[in-house]
Amino acid sequence: MSEVLVIGGDGFCGWPTSLHLADQGHNVTIVDNLSRRQIDVELGVESLTPILPIEERIDTWSEVAGADKAIGFVELDVAQDYEGLTGLLREFEPDVVVHFGEQRAAPYSMKTPATKRYTVDNNVNATHNLLAGVVETGVDPHIVHLGTMGVYGYGWSGSAPIPEGYIDVRFDTPDGTVERNILHPANPGSVYHMTKVLDQTMFAFYAKNDGLRITDLHQGIVWGTQTPQTERDEGLINRFDYDGDYGTVLNRLIMQAAIGHPLTVHGTGGQTRAFIHIRDTVRCVELASFSKPPEKGDRPAIFNQVTETHRVRELAKMIADLSGVEIEYLKNPRLEAEENELNVEHEQFAQLGLTPTTLSEGLLDEIRDIAFKYRARVDESKILATSQWKTDVKK
Amino acid sequence: MSEVLVIGGDGFCGWPTSLHLADQGHNVTIVDNLSRRQIDVELGVESLTPILPIEERIDTWSEVAGADKAIGFVELDVAQDYEGLTGLLREFEPDVVVHFGEQRAAPYSMKTPATKRYTVDNNVNATHNLLAGVVETGVDPHIVHLGTMGVYGYGWSGSAPIPEGYIDVRFDTPDGTVERNILHPANPGSVYHMTKVLDQTMFAFYAKNDGLRITDLHQGIVWGTQTPQTERDEGLINRFDYDGDYGTVLNRLIMQAAIGHPLTVHGTGGQTRAFIHIRDTVRCVELASFSKPPEKGDRPAIFNQVTETHRVRELAKMIADLSGVEIEYLKNPRLEAEENELNVEHEQFAQLGLTPTTLSEGLLDEIRDIAFKYRARVDESKILATSQWKTDVKK
Repeated sequence: MSEVLVIGGDGFCGWPTSLHLADQGHNVTIVDNLSRRQIDVELGVESLTPILPIEERIDTWSEVAGADKAIGFVELDVAQDYEGLTGLLREFEPDVVVHFGEQRAAPYSMKTPATKRYTVDNNVNATHNLLAGVVETGVDPHIVHLGTMGVYGYGWSGSAPIPEGYIDVRFDTPDGTVERNILHPANPGSVYHMTKVLDQTMFAFYAKNDGLRITDLHQGIVWGTQTPQTERDEGLINRFDYDGDYGTVLNRLIMQAAIGHPLTVHGTGGQTRAFIHIRDTVRCVELASFSKPPEKGDRPAIFNQVTETHRVRELAKMIADLSGVEIEYLKNPRLEAEENELNVEHEQFAQLGLTPTTLSEGLLDEIRDIAFKYRARVDESKILATSQWKTDVKK
Repeated sequence: MSEVLVIGGDGFCGWPTSLHLADQGHNVTIVDNLSRRQIDVELGVESLTPILPIEERIDTWSEVAGADKAIGFVELDVAQDYEGLTGLLREFEPDVVVHFGEQRAAPYSMKTPATKRYTVDNNVNATHNLLAGVVETGVDPHIVHLGTMGVYGYGWSGSAPIPEGYIDVRFDTPDGTVERNILHPANPGSVYHMTKVLDQTMFAFYAKNDGLRITDLHQGIVWGTQTPQTERDEGLINRFDYDGDYGTVLNRLIMQAAIGHPLTVHGTGGQTRAFIHIRDTVRCVELASFSKPPEKGDRPAIFNQVTETHRVRELAKMIADLSGVEIEYLKNPRLEAEENELNVEHEQFAQLGLTPTTLSEGLLDEIRDIAFKYRARVDESKILATSQWKTDVKK
């Protein structure tokens, strides 16, 4: 049984991860500033699913799972309150700190100068405070961070599969050709994705200079809402974001199917993206945390946390076939290639025993049990994306 | 004649750059939060040379150079006051923004958790506010930023020369070998150097997404104090830092020579470093600003702003020979290789017409006209480095 802090444990990935780890018998404490709920208020939207206030969800969990699996909660902003953070590290002496404490929507990060600046300031200082705090306190947790496939960008490596974090390259020197295994070149597509590149730079330095043990999980687009734990009581339900800022392309399509709105695809829908079900996310975090932690002196371990890839128009087609709703093609507000190949290596989690939930198996449940069930709560005006990647959108 | 804002224009590189650009006929406005002077107070040290308060130095410049070359001054913290910064961009509509507005001492950045956190927070937000502000205002200056050779680290590429920013690499794909010219892999040696890697990630994104025109100058260790402009009146004199945090290895040795203290060398002195005289720094900033600005859509232009490389023990030997003071070898507080090769490409500035001042030409003047002349102002207790790179220093 390990002591685990989950920073950002009230969020979409953080909440089910906290429940999963608690259910496995770990001592879990959620550290969260509740910023995700505040941004809902700012944007005038709310989760399609009726999520409870954090205190009520953790009380519900204690009732359902028993007091020995209870989860703690500390309201704290790790980007702002460094003394509070080091106090927690000293008090809990965690074996693992799972770090979800970052603003995680690309469209929100591109919305206004204020949201760009908030995303950089919050994400960089949250990560750096954690790193500096671990060094200062001498507590030596395994830091498990949620990165993104977006650090690699799309199309850079041609037909080559994107490796898990590091790539073998050769270059010429006066003494002949040299081989190096380097951090994969970064090509982020939004301010949000850029902050995850900043994070990996800081991780590399602190692993090298201070011997911190760090794992970075480059996750694809997460879909699905429920895990075996969140399904145990409606009071434990996970959030489902469908708005233009926080809703993923898949959630937008699912939502549109549920209300009979045409399925909107940006551009040609030729964008290939990587996906993973939330059930697999929580399992991956567990596997990465405990199965294969890096040792002191190792560079950060990097996993590609994805289970399958699809083109957006294929997803739309799958959902159109399941729902009978037609597809509509719109101009793309993002600066991105209309069509891209995406070949992602993700052998490490398979080797650790992950058996994924695929879209073809799970999509119908998601449409029926979440989107259709809660469709009366939808605000249709919030579904479409409004963030422009720049004022004068380039093709 | 161009409109130029110099962020950090009261500092060691910023002040002589501002004078040089004003002397060339540009309209120069210094934007500075005076943090460098505040850190002097915090550390209980001061410049060996008697620098005047900013208002007095710019008044002195007006008297010496004439009202048509006068320099403006705005006290503003660009990392904190985003509205103030965008106000300046709109008011001045600068052709060039020279960005020196960062905490720039590696030892200071490793001193305490607070100085680590300040360095990251200040440097990242200063740079990002500038980038976001340029996008928001639509003003389209050429952004010229002072980077560091330390982004490359030492020894990574074996005997290969460090190219100017980008390196050709090859890797294998199922369809054969692919060539790419990528940003040189980063290997920063301190939190300060790490922030310059974070900067270059942000530059790459904003150049790609928003078409910003950015030049990054990866500078070596700057030595020397005076430029043709700062020499015109003692009231214009540039700062000379000799303390263990802000003083470079070269200034430490020069200072020790002037007061007859043994020349302290860390480790074997086999560390090879790149150098440039402050006279050449100001000329490089001018050349980079106006001779070869990148165009909209270009990736950031990167120059290696160095003119020669030496091993630390060679420098000590040169200064020992000039001064008759002996050399003493101390344990190295930094985590770095004892011996390294350093072969740096720096053809771009040569091609633009830079004719450097070499150490062998200028060292004696520096010892005599600065260190010896002002030696009565020295606090000998401040000369040695005290920052430890980590609590338990590894070899």
